[in-house]
Amino acid sequence: MIYYDFERFKNDIPNLGTLCEPFRPDTIVAVARGGMTLAHALCMHLDVRNLQSIRCESYDDMEQRNDITIIGNSTFATSKRILIVDDIVDSGKTLYALLPLLQQHNPEVVFKTASLFTKSTALIQPDFSLHEATDWIDFFWERDFLKSDSL
Amino acid sequence: MIYYDFERFKNDIPNLGTLCEPFRPDTIVAVARGGMTLAHALCMHLDVRNLQSIRCESYDDMEQRNDITIIGNSTFATSKRILIVDDIVDSGKTLYALLPLLQQHNPEVVFKTASLFTKSTALIQPDFSLHEATDWIDFFWERDFLKSDSL
Repeated sequence: MIYYDFERFKNDIPNLGTLCEPFRPDTIVAVARGGMTLAHALCMHLDVRNLQSIRCESYDDMEQRNDITIIGNSTFATSKRILIVDDIVDSGKTLYALLPLLQQHNPEVVFKTASLFTKSTALIQPDFSLHEATDWIDFFWERDFLKSDSL
Repeated sequence: MIYYDFERFKNDIPNLGTLCEPFRPDTIVAVARGGMTLAHALCMHLDVRNLQSIRCESYDDMEQRNDITIIGNSTFATSKRILIVDDIVDSGKTLYALLPLLQQHNPEVVFKTASLFTKSTALIQPDFSLHEATDWIDFFWERDFLKSDSL
Protein backbone atom coordinates (compact mmCIF):
# COMPACT_ATOMS: atom_id res chain seq x y z
CA MET A 1 0.00 0.00 0.00
CA ILE A 2 1.25 3.45 -0.90
CA TYR A 3 0.34 6.39 1.28
CA TYR A 4 -0.04 9.34 -1.05
CA ASP A 5 0.44 12.39 1.15
CA PHE A 6 -0.19 16.06 0.62
CA GLU A 7 3.45 16.85 -0.14
CA ARG A 8 3.51 14.38 -3.00
CA PHE A 9 0.20 15.73 -4.25
CA LYS A 10 1.55 19.28 -4.14
CA ASN A 11 4.57 18.21 -6.19
CA ASP A 12 2.43 16.30 -8.68
CA ILE A 13 0.01 19.11 -9.54
CA PRO A 14 2.43 21.13 -11.70
CA ASN A 15 3.41 17.96 -13.54
CA LEU A 16 -0.14 16.85 -14.24
CA GLY A 17 -1.01 20.45 -15.01
CA THR A 18 1.74 20.62 -17.62
CA LEU A 19 0.34 17.51 -19.31
CA CYS A 20 -3.19 18.94 -19.36
CA GLU A 21 -2.31 22.50 -20.30
CA PRO A 22 -2.07 22.07 -24.11
CA PHE A 23 -5.70 20.90 -24.09
CA ARG A 24 -6.68 24.33 -22.69
CA PRO A 25 -9.81 23.15 -20.87
CA ASP A 26 -12.43 25.80 -20.15
CA THR A 27 -14.23 23.52 -17.71
CA ILE A 28 -13.03 20.95 -15.20
CA VAL A 29 -15.38 18.28 -13.92
CA ALA A 30 -14.48 16.27 -10.83
CA VAL A 31 -15.69 12.72 -10.57
CA ALA A 32 -16.96 12.68 -6.98
CA ARG A 33 -15.88 11.82 -4.46
CA GLY A 34 -12.31 10.85 -5.33
CA GLY A 35 -11.62 13.51 -7.93
CA MET A 36 -12.81 16.54 -5.96
CA THR A 37 -9.58 17.71 -4.31
CA LEU A 38 -7.54 16.99 -7.44
CA ALA A 39 -9.97 18.86 -9.67
CA HIS A 40 -9.88 21.83 -7.32
CA ALA A 41 -6.08 21.90 -7.38
CA LEU A 42 -5.91 21.50 -11.16
CA CYS A 43 -8.39 24.28 -11.80
CA MET A 44 -6.36 26.60 -9.60
CA HIS A 45 -3.18 25.62 -11.44
CA LEU A 46 -4.72 25.96 -14.88
CA ASP A 47 -6.76 29.04 -13.94
CA VAL A 48 -10.04 27.41 -14.96
CA ARG A 49 -12.99 29.09 -13.30
CA ASN A 50 -15.68 26.65 -14.38
CA LEU A 51 -15.34 23.81 -11.88
CA GLN A 52 -18.13 21.30 -11.55
CA SER A 53 -18.56 17.77 -10.31
CA ILE A 54 -20.40 14.68 -11.32
CA ARG A 55 -21.33 11.63 -9.35
CA CYS A 56 -21.85 8.17 -10.74
CA GLU A 57 -23.65 5.43 -8.92
CA SER A 58 -23.46 1.67 -9.25
CA TYR A 59 -19.73 1.66 -9.68
CA ASP A 60 -19.31 -1.50 -7.68
CA ASP A 61 -21.83 -3.71 -9.39
CA MET A 62 -21.70 -2.13 -12.80
CA GLU A 63 -21.34 -4.88 -15.34
CA GLN A 64 -22.30 -3.12 -18.50
CA ARG A 65 -21.36 0.09 -20.13
CA ASN A 66 -24.80 1.63 -19.75
CA ASP A 67 -25.43 0.57 -16.18
CA ILE A 68 -24.53 3.92 -14.79
CA THR A 69 -26.56 6.69 -13.25
CA ILE A 70 -25.19 10.18 -13.36
CA ILE A 71 -26.24 12.12 -10.28
CA GLY A 72 -26.22 15.88 -10.54
CA ASN A 73 -26.47 16.89 -14.15
CA SER A 74 -23.83 19.37 -15.04
CA THR A 75 -24.53 22.32 -17.27
CA PHE A 76 -22.09 22.63 -20.10
CA ALA A 77 -23.89 25.31 -22.10
CA THR A 78 -20.82 27.54 -22.19
CA SER A 79 -18.21 24.77 -22.26
CA LYS A 80 -16.20 23.74 -25.30
CA ARG A 81 -13.30 21.81 -23.82
CA ILE A 82 -13.96 19.79 -20.70
CA LEU A 83 -11.42 17.96 -18.59
CA ILE A 84 -12.88 15.09 -16.55
CA VAL A 85 -10.77 14.46 -13.45
CA ASP A 86 -10.55 11.45 -11.16
CA ASP A 87 -7.92 10.50 -8.62
CA ILE A 88 -7.34 6.97 -9.95
CA VAL A 89 -8.51 5.07 -12.98
CA ASP A 90 -8.68 1.58 -11.55
CA SER A 91 -11.01 -0.73 -13.45
CA GLY A 92 -11.83 2.21 -15.72
CA LYS A 93 -15.52 1.31 -15.63
CA THR A 94 -16.63 4.73 -14.46
CA LEU A 95 -14.96 6.64 -17.29
CA TYR A 96 -15.83 3.93 -19.79
CA ALA A 97 -19.50 4.35 -18.97
CA LEU A 98 -19.45 8.07 -18.33
CA LEU A 99 -17.66 9.41 -21.40
CA PRO A 100 -20.07 8.14 -24.09
CA LEU A 101 -23.01 9.47 -22.07
CA LEU A 102 -21.44 12.89 -21.70
CA GLN A 103 -20.44 12.98 -25.35
CA GLN A 104 -23.93 11.97 -26.43
CA HIS A 105 -25.53 14.74 -24.41
CA ASN A 106 -22.91 17.31 -25.42
CA PRO A 107 -21.96 16.46 -29.00
CA GLU A 108 -20.15 19.78 -29.59
CA VAL A 109 -17.89 19.45 -26.59
CA VAL A 110 -14.40 17.95 -26.63
CA PHE A 111 -13.79 15.79 -23.57
CA LYS A 112 -10.43 14.70 -22.21
CA THR A 113 -9.65 12.83 -19.04
CA ALA A 114 -6.98 13.16 -16.37
CA SER A 115 -5.95 11.19 -13.30
CA LEU A 116 -3.04 10.89 -10.93
CA PHE A 117 -2.88 7.10 -11.15
CA THR A 118 -3.99 4.59 -13.76
CA LYS A 119 -3.95 0.84 -13.77
CA SER A 120 -2.51 -0.68 -16.92
CA THR A 121 -5.47 -3.06 -17.00
CA ALA A 122 -8.08 -0.27 -16.95
CA LEU A 123 -10.82 -0.44 -19.59
CA ILE A 124 -9.93 3.07 -20.65
CA GLN A 125 -6.65 4.93 -20.31
CA PRO A 126 -7.03 8.63 -19.47
CA ASP A 127 -5.54 11.18 -21.83
CA PHE A 128 -3.34 12.58 -19.08
CA SER A 129 -2.03 10.54 -16.16
CA LEU A 130 1.13 10.67 -14.07
CA HIS A 131 1.63 7.28 -12.46
CA GLU A 132 0.86 3.66 -13.08
CA ALA A 133 -0.99 2.15 -10.14
CA THR A 134 0.70 -1.10 -9.23
CA ASP A 135 -0.35 -1.11 -5.60
CA TRP A 136 -3.23 0.09 -3.45
CA ILE A 137 -3.07 3.88 -3.17
CA ASP A 138 -4.14 5.44 0.08
CA PHE A 139 -4.76 9.07 -0.88
CA PHE A 140 -4.44 11.63 1.91
CA TRP A 141 -8.10 12.62 1.42
CA GLU A 142 -9.07 9.04 2.21
CA ARG A 143 -7.00 8.87 5.37
CA ASP A 144 -6.13 12.23 6.90
CA PHE A 145 -9.69 13.30 7.65
CA LEU A 146 -11.15 10.11 9.05
CA LYS A 147 -12.39 10.12 12.61
CA SER A 148 -9.78 8.76 14.93
CA ASP A 149 -12.07 5.90 15.97
CA SER A 150 -12.47 4.75 12.37
CA LEU A 151 -8.75 4.35 11.71
CA MET B 1 -2.92 38.12 5.49
CA ILE B 2 -3.16 34.65 6.99
CA TYR B 3 -1.72 31.71 5.13
CA TYR B 4 -3.99 28.78 5.87
CA ASP B 5 -1.87 25.72 5.21
CA PHE B 6 -2.69 22.06 4.87
CA GLU B 7 -1.64 21.22 8.43
CA ARG B 8 -4.09 23.72 9.86
CA PHE B 9 -6.78 22.42 7.54
CA LYS B 10 -6.10 18.86 8.64
CA ASN B 11 -6.45 19.90 12.28
CA ASP B 12 -9.63 21.85 11.60
CA ILE B 13 -11.57 19.09 9.86
CA PRO B 14 -12.35 17.05 12.99
CA ASN B 15 -13.46 20.24 14.76
CA LEU B 16 -15.75 21.39 11.98
CA GLY B 17 -16.89 17.80 11.53
CA THR B 18 -17.89 17.63 15.20
CA LEU B 19 -19.99 20.76 14.79
CA CYS B 20 -21.73 19.38 11.69
CA GLU B 21 -22.19 15.82 12.90
CA PRO B 22 -25.41 16.27 14.91
CA PHE B 23 -27.12 17.49 11.72
CA ARG B 24 -26.40 14.07 10.17
CA PRO B 25 -26.25 15.28 6.54
CA ASP B 26 -26.91 12.65 3.89
CA THR B 27 -25.58 14.95 1.18
CA ILE B 28 -22.76 17.48 1.05
CA VAL B 29 -22.71 20.17 -1.60
CA ALA B 30 -19.55 22.14 -2.25
CA VAL B 31 -19.84 25.71 -3.41
CA ALA B 32 -17.28 25.73 -6.23
CA ARG B 33 -14.55 26.53 -6.49
CA GLY B 34 -13.59 27.47 -2.92
CA GLY B 35 -15.59 24.84 -1.10
CA MET B 36 -14.46 21.80 -3.10
CA THR B 37 -11.49 20.60 -1.05
CA LEU B 38 -13.27 21.30 2.24
CA ALA B 39 -16.42 19.49 1.14
CA HIS B 40 -14.35 16.48 0.07
CA ALA B 41 -12.59 16.36 3.45
CA LEU B 42 -15.83 16.80 5.40
CA CYS B 43 -17.61 14.06 3.49
CA MET B 44 -14.74 11.68 4.21
CA HIS B 45 -14.84 12.64 7.90
CA LEU B 46 -18.62 12.34 8.18
CA ASP B 47 -18.79 9.29 5.91
CA VAL B 48 -21.22 10.96 3.52
CA ARG B 49 -21.20 9.32 0.11
CA ASN B 50 -23.39 11.80 -1.73
CA LEU B 51 -20.98 14.62 -2.58
CA GLN B 52 -21.98 17.18 -5.18
CA SER B 53 -21.05 20.69 -6.11
CA ILE B 54 -22.77 23.82 -7.21
CA ARG B 55 -21.44 26.87 -8.94
CA CYS B 56 -22.84 30.35 -8.71
CA GLU B 57 -22.08 33.10 -11.14
CA SER B 58 -22.21 36.84 -10.75
CA TYR B 59 -20.81 36.81 -7.26
CA ASP B 60 -18.86 39.99 -7.83
CA ASP B 61 -21.54 42.22 -9.21
CA MET B 62 -24.51 40.66 -7.51
CA GLU B 63 -26.53 43.44 -5.95
CA GLN B 64 -29.78 41.71 -5.31
CA ARG B 65 -30.83 38.50 -3.76
CA ASN B 66 -32.15 37.01 -6.99
CA ASP B 67 -29.25 38.03 -9.21
CA ILE B 68 -27.63 34.64 -9.11
CA THR B 69 -27.29 31.89 -11.63
CA ILE B 70 -26.80 28.38 -10.40
CA ILE B 71 -24.61 26.44 -12.78
CA GLY B 72 -24.85 22.68 -12.69
CA ASN B 73 -28.16 21.73 -11.17
CA SER B 74 -27.72 19.18 -8.49
CA THR B 75 -30.08 16.29 -8.08
CA PHE B 76 -31.41 15.96 -4.60
CA ALA B 77 -34.06 13.32 -5.25
CA THR B 78 -32.70 11.04 -2.54
CA SER B 79 -31.49 13.78 -0.19
CA LYS B 80 -33.19 14.82 3.02
CA ARG B 81 -30.49 16.70 4.91
CA ILE B 82 -28.03 18.69 2.86
CA LEU B 83 -24.94 20.47 4.10
CA ILE B 84 -23.81 23.36 1.88
CA VAL B 85 -20.07 23.92 2.27
CA ASP B 86 -17.91 26.91 1.39
CA ASP B 87 -14.41 27.81 2.51
CA ILE B 88 -15.26 31.32 3.67
CA VAL B 89 -18.46 33.28 4.10
CA ASP B 90 -17.24 36.75 3.31
CA SER B 91 -19.98 39.12 2.18
CA GLY B 92 -22.38 36.19 2.51
CA LYS B 93 -24.06 37.14 -0.75
CA THR B 94 -23.60 33.72 -2.31
CA LEU B 95 -25.33 31.82 0.48
CA TYR B 96 -27.89 34.58 0.92
CA ALA B 97 -28.94 34.19 -2.71
CA LEU B 98 -28.39 30.46 -3.00
CA LEU B 99 -30.25 29.12 0.02
CA PRO B 100 -33.75 30.44 -0.81
CA LEU B 101 -33.40 29.14 -4.37
CA LEU B 102 -32.36 25.70 -3.19
CA GLN B 103 -35.11 25.63 -0.58
CA GLN B 104 -37.69 26.71 -3.12
CA HIS B 105 -36.71 23.93 -5.52
CA ASN B 106 -36.41 21.34 -2.77
CA PRO B 107 -39.09 22.18 -0.21
CA GLU B 108 -38.81 18.85 1.61
CA VAL B 109 -35.08 19.13 2.20
CA VAL B 110 -33.45 20.59 5.31
CA PHE B 111 -30.43 22.70 4.40
CA LYS B 112 -27.63 23.73 6.72
CA THR B 113 -24.43 25.58 5.92
CA ALA B 114 -20.82 25.19 7.00
CA SER B 115 -17.61 27.12 6.45
CA LEU B 116 -14.13 27.36 7.90
CA PHE B 117 -14.20 31.15 8.18
CA THR B 118 -17.00 33.68 8.46
CA LYS B 119 -16.93 37.45 8.54
CA SER B 120 -18.99 38.97 11.32
CA THR B 121 -20.43 41.38 8.75
CA ALA B 122 -21.67 38.63 6.40
CA LEU B 123 -25.29 38.86 5.26
CA ILE B 124 -25.84 35.36 6.53
CA GLN B 125 -24.02 33.44 9.23
CA PRO B 126 -23.50 29.75 8.46
CA ASP B 127 -24.91 27.20 10.87
CA PHE B 128 -21.47 25.75 11.50
CA SER B 129 -18.24 27.74 11.28
CA LEU B 130 -14.92 27.55 13.07
CA HIS B 131 -13.23 30.92 12.77
CA GLU B 132 -14.07 34.56 12.42
CA ALA B 133 -12.34 36.06 9.40
CA THR B 134 -10.69 39.28 10.49
CA ASP B 135 -8.00 39.28 7.84
CA TRP B 136 -7.50 38.10 4.27
CA ILE B 137 -7.22 34.31 4.26
CA ASP B 138 -4.89 32.73 1.76
CA PHE B 139 -6.07 29.11 1.64
CA PHE B 140 -3.53 26.53 0.57
CA TRP B 141 -5.69 25.60 -2.43
CA GLU B 142 -5.40 29.19 -3.62
CA ARG B 143 -1.64 29.30 -3.29
CA ASP B 144 0.08 25.91 -3.29
CA PHE B 145 -0.97 24.89 -6.79
CA LEU B 146 -0.36 28.10 -8.71
CA LYS B 147 2.15 28.07 -11.50
CA SER B 148 5.49 29.37 -10.29
CA ASP B 149 5.33 32.25 -12.76
CA SER B 150 2.00 33.44 -11.40
CA LEU B 151 3.18 33.79 -7.80
